[in-house]
Amino acid sequence: MCAYCDRVTRTIDWVDGAVALIDQTRLPDELIVLRVEDVPTLVDSIQRLAVRGAPAIGVAGAFGVVLALSEANFPAAVQELRNARPTAVNLARMVDRVAARAGEGFEAALGEALAIRDEEIAASRLMGERGAEVVDQLVGDGRVRAMTICNTGGLATVERGTALAVIQTLHEAGRLEEALVLETRPLLQGARLTAWELQRLGAPYRLVVDAAAPSLLARGAADVILTGADRVAANGDTANKIGTFGLALGARHADVPFVVVAPESTLDAATPTGAEIEIEDRGAEEVVSLKGVAIAPEGTAAVNPAFDVTPCELITALVTERRVVRLSGGERL
Amino acid sequence: MCAYCDRVTRTIDWVDGAVALIDQTRLPDELIVLRVEDVPTLVDSIQRLAVRGAPAIGVAGAFGVVLALSEANFPAAVQELRNARPTAVNLARMVDRVAARAGEGFEAALGEALAIRDEEIAASRLMGERGAEVVDQLVGDGRVRAMTICNTGGLATVERGTALAVIQTLHEAGRLEEALVLETRPLLQGARLTAWELQRLGAPYRLVVDAAAPSLLARGAADVILTGADRVAANGDTANKIGTFGLALGARHADVPFVVVAPESTLDAATPTGAEIEIEDRGAEEVVSLKGVAIAPEGTAAVNPAFDVTPCELITALVTERRVVRLSGGERL
Repeated sequence: MCAYCDRVTRTIDWVDGAVALIDQTRLPDELIVLRVEDVPTLVDSIQRLAVRGAPAIGVAGAFGVVLALSEANFPAAVQELRNARPTAVNLARMVDRVAARAGEGFEAALGEALAIRDEEIAASRLMGERGAEVVDQLVGDGRVRAMTICNTGGLATVERGTALAVIQTLHEAGRLEEALVLETRPLLQGARLTAWELQRLGAPYRLVVDAAAPSLLARGAADVILTGADRVAANGDTANKIGTFGLALGARHADVPFVVVAPESTLDAATPTGAEIEIEDRGAEEVVSLKGVAIAPEGTAAVNPAFDVTPCELITALVTERRVVRLSGGERL
Repeated sequence: MCAYCDRVTRTIDWVDGAVALIDQTRLPDELIVLRVEDVPTLVDSIQRLAVRGAPAIGVAGAFGVVLALSEANFPAAVQELRNARPTAVNLARMVDRVAARAGEGFEAALGEALAIRDEEIAASRLMGERGAEVVDQLVGDGRVRAMTICNTGGLATVERGTALAVIQTLHEAGRLEEALVLETRPLLQGARLTAWELQRLGAPYRLVVDAAAPSLLARGAADVILTGADRVAANGDTANKIGTFGLALGARHADVPFVVVAPESTLDAATPTGAEIEIEDRGAEEVVSLKGVAIAPEGTAAVNPAFDVTPCELITALVTERRVVRLSGGERL
């Protein structure tokens, strides 16, 4: 690895006057750190999922506004950043927060972006600890088998993550019996990224195809589900990676607690319920091929919603860095 | 294609004194017909899924007993065939049926195997017609959007199929608005085989990842679910491709009818409920790689149940070539 890559240990950071980010499309095969110096390249990185995970996208948007100060048309660059992905609420929110300081100059904007980065790091640590306490309350303080979907680890934030931060905290306490990782088609964030992170942590895990989850739950294979969120509506309905809703249905059928772990920045009081959350369709290409290999006959069309909405009634608890909300028990945000 | 391949139009058949079968592991890239002359090769073809689908496996087992007559140890060869895959009940049943005629000589055994082939062909046509009538009753006689999992077409039987025979019948009647095809990880029978069959039929279809089904159903994307079965227990609990149970949970949540289409040969009165059905685990390799391409870090373990069990309460109707059983309405076999 290059000397520059060697110095970057966070998923996303500000290094030597530019954005440094791990190119997650290359994992688990290669660990490559990109140096991004302009807004179009950053927007492209967000859209092709080189950087992904709601909190990490929020930090990318924050640093992006700092880059936008050097673009010919600052307001247009900010809008482009804001609209790079529609479902994650953090992106628009963090872009707006840094843009509000832009009038004070470069240092003020960068200071705000760095504060956002540091808040996400602190939030991850708190979510991990608080989530582990909730797991104690729900399933007891013995060894835990936790099922998870997509990637919600350090790669989805800056460090440690959201739902995977809970699994990391349990592992560090010697309490993780096993993580069951859904591969998360179409882009396989579970197989590629979560498995890679767990392996680096030395945590025990096994991979499963997404469709196996309800049946494994019915057969008693997991004690708790831990997922992240891309956007939580005011009533607690939660948009997250496609497959989360089906996982919640399986958990309810098997009476397994379903816990969403997400920073406060993911909560969107302006969206009353899940019905108002825009669901991004990412097109056929991701479905009909995999790593460049065609898996369906040429000319096959596809529906490819990137997210689904899990109704609040199916969510046992929502854990943020500040609080625990028992959604299925009737509590609201 | 070779002249031999050209003459074989059925998924599996007896041609020139040997078993001819389409190698389904090569689809959709290539249409290759294998000529199988001995039991070990046939067992291998069953286990690596060159031939698959409960009815087609049953016919393979039937022809296999004819091949076993030329093996050094007939009883051992029959046992090997019988145990090639544990979940599909047809296999053992058809093997036993032909083996019972073996004492009468080659012609009697071959005659029985050919009768089984012809019964499956007739059953497929009847299931298609009866299933289309059930769809009429459940969702009206307008155009239909049908969701399906795995491959239940001609490739899973000898011709036309089970659940996909219903979709073909609807298409031939000009009533298929669209088939929504679940890709069916890990082996992608939906993406590779069902899409290939629908394309050849000129039927409209779109592919979806398995995890997208519950959310698409909640958003009203399909009128009915049509699936096959690998084994139906006496109470109607149904073992089918992994993911079927989650699809049934999604259908129930969205109030979409869930219809199982399977020949009588799949019904297993000797198994009281789904709890007694053995579920084959096919090992990590199918999960951690795809067409030889690794999708997870080296050394990743996996859980890989090939089937799951859908409780009878979640099944609106079971359609066979002889009858319709309203399982969720309380009817029993």
